[in-house]
Amino acid sequence: MKTRDRIIEASLQLFNEQGERAVTTNHIAAHLGMSPGNLYYHFRNKQQIIAELFERYAAEAEQNLALPQGRALDLDDKARYLESMGATMWRYRFMLRDLEHLLASDVELAARYRAFSRHSLRAIEAIFQGTIDAGILDARYANAEVLALNSWLLMTSWVNFLCTTMLNDAQDDLTPQMLRRGVYQVLAQERGLLSEAARPAVDVMLERLYSPLAAD
Amino acid sequence: MKTRDRIIEASLQLFNEQGERAVTTNHIAAHLGMSPGNLYYHFRNKQQIIAELFERYAAEAEQNLALPQGRALDLDDKARYLESMGATMWRYRFMLRDLEHLLASDVELAARYRAFSRHSLRAIEAIFQGTIDAGILDARYANAEVLALNSWLLMTSWVNFLCTTMLNDAQDDLTPQMLRRGVYQVLAQERGLLSEAARPAVDVMLERLYSPLAAD
Repeated sequence: MKTRDRIIEASLQLFNEQGERAVTTNHIAAHLGMSPGNLYYHFRNKQQIIAELFERYAAEAEQNLALPQGRALDLDDKARYLESMGATMWRYRFMLRDLEHLLASDVELAARYRAFSRHSLRAIEAIFQGTIDAGILDARYANAEVLALNSWLLMTSWVNFLCTTMLNDAQDDLTPQMLRRGVYQVLAQERGLLSEAARPAVDVMLERLYSPLAAD
Repeated sequence: MKTRDRIIEASLQLFNEQGERAVTTNHIAAHLGMSPGNLYYHFRNKQQIIAELFERYAAEAEQNLALPQGRALDLDDKARYLESMGATMWRYRFMLRDLEHLLASDVELAARYRAFSRHSLRAIEAIFQGTIDAGILDARYANAEVLALNSWLLMTSWVNFLCTTMLNDAQDDLTPQMLRRGVYQVLAQERGLLSEAARPAVDVMLERLYSPLAAD
């Protein structure tokens, strides 16, 4: 792996494990057995590492949300959208946990996020429109814009919600199961909107995604 | 009005207008034509003012979410829940905008928020269970826990979403209309879950709450 990629991967791991606030460029260099000077040769500061991680997160999210080419959307596509978004949320969970702080500390990142978020909303709306057009959701009651907005809000606020409300201590660890419950919450929005033909398969997906949320 | 209440009201106004980060206790004292010493007689620091504002926000939210006593829930109750939560969100919008920052800077507030958030989730779940029991929502597909979680996530993340995604500039002002759209998004979750008897009245409520979200 190139040094630049090793720095990015180590930063992502440390940010996810310890929180972005607690990790300095010196920690990252020490973790890699690298001199701070060598790290600074690749990245001017932590902000630049975060900006690069954001670009990778956004690229992964945008790829996840691509529409199938030349054919209608089906239930396998829906399963793939949900699984891939869950994996991306887990992989970049430090960013979702502290998004507000990251955007408040970097105006360029805030502008980039704004564009990414609007683009994602349009992509998700197209997916829901495809789901309605394919007869999976009932066109009388399903509204692609409403569903896209709510899905985006749920996905982007789920990790932060877990940390502020469900974990008993900020030091407790998130688990992939807790993230899956967020994906379940997104799919569960469709419970009343499903066509009779699609309902059995979506119910199986819901059951597979479900995990209880334990709070004392 | 007592001096203590005047300080609280002025702080809320300035935080909402200028953002909590930009407002110091000196600004608040100057706004009231009061000496900083007089302000410090009532509040040790800005953190204590924020803690008091949070208690008022939590008390208002908990009052909004009370169940009707000794009778079943009806559609007027639902309208009242939505209106009152919208008004509380608007009144304390600075807090919803910067929640993560406020909680990260004050561990006591974070613990208090955790308890408030869990309590609110239970209260909202009881409201949805009441809505299902009253036959407003279809018991086959509506799940009170799922709806409560998603409603809470939507309500607590809506202001921040507007600021990070829909406003073109952090300096742009939020409007009550933009907040109402958040309330619309919460009610719109029920679109596919409504009983035939409840649908016409809820459709009227949805139409009244709707406003377009303009982003370039």
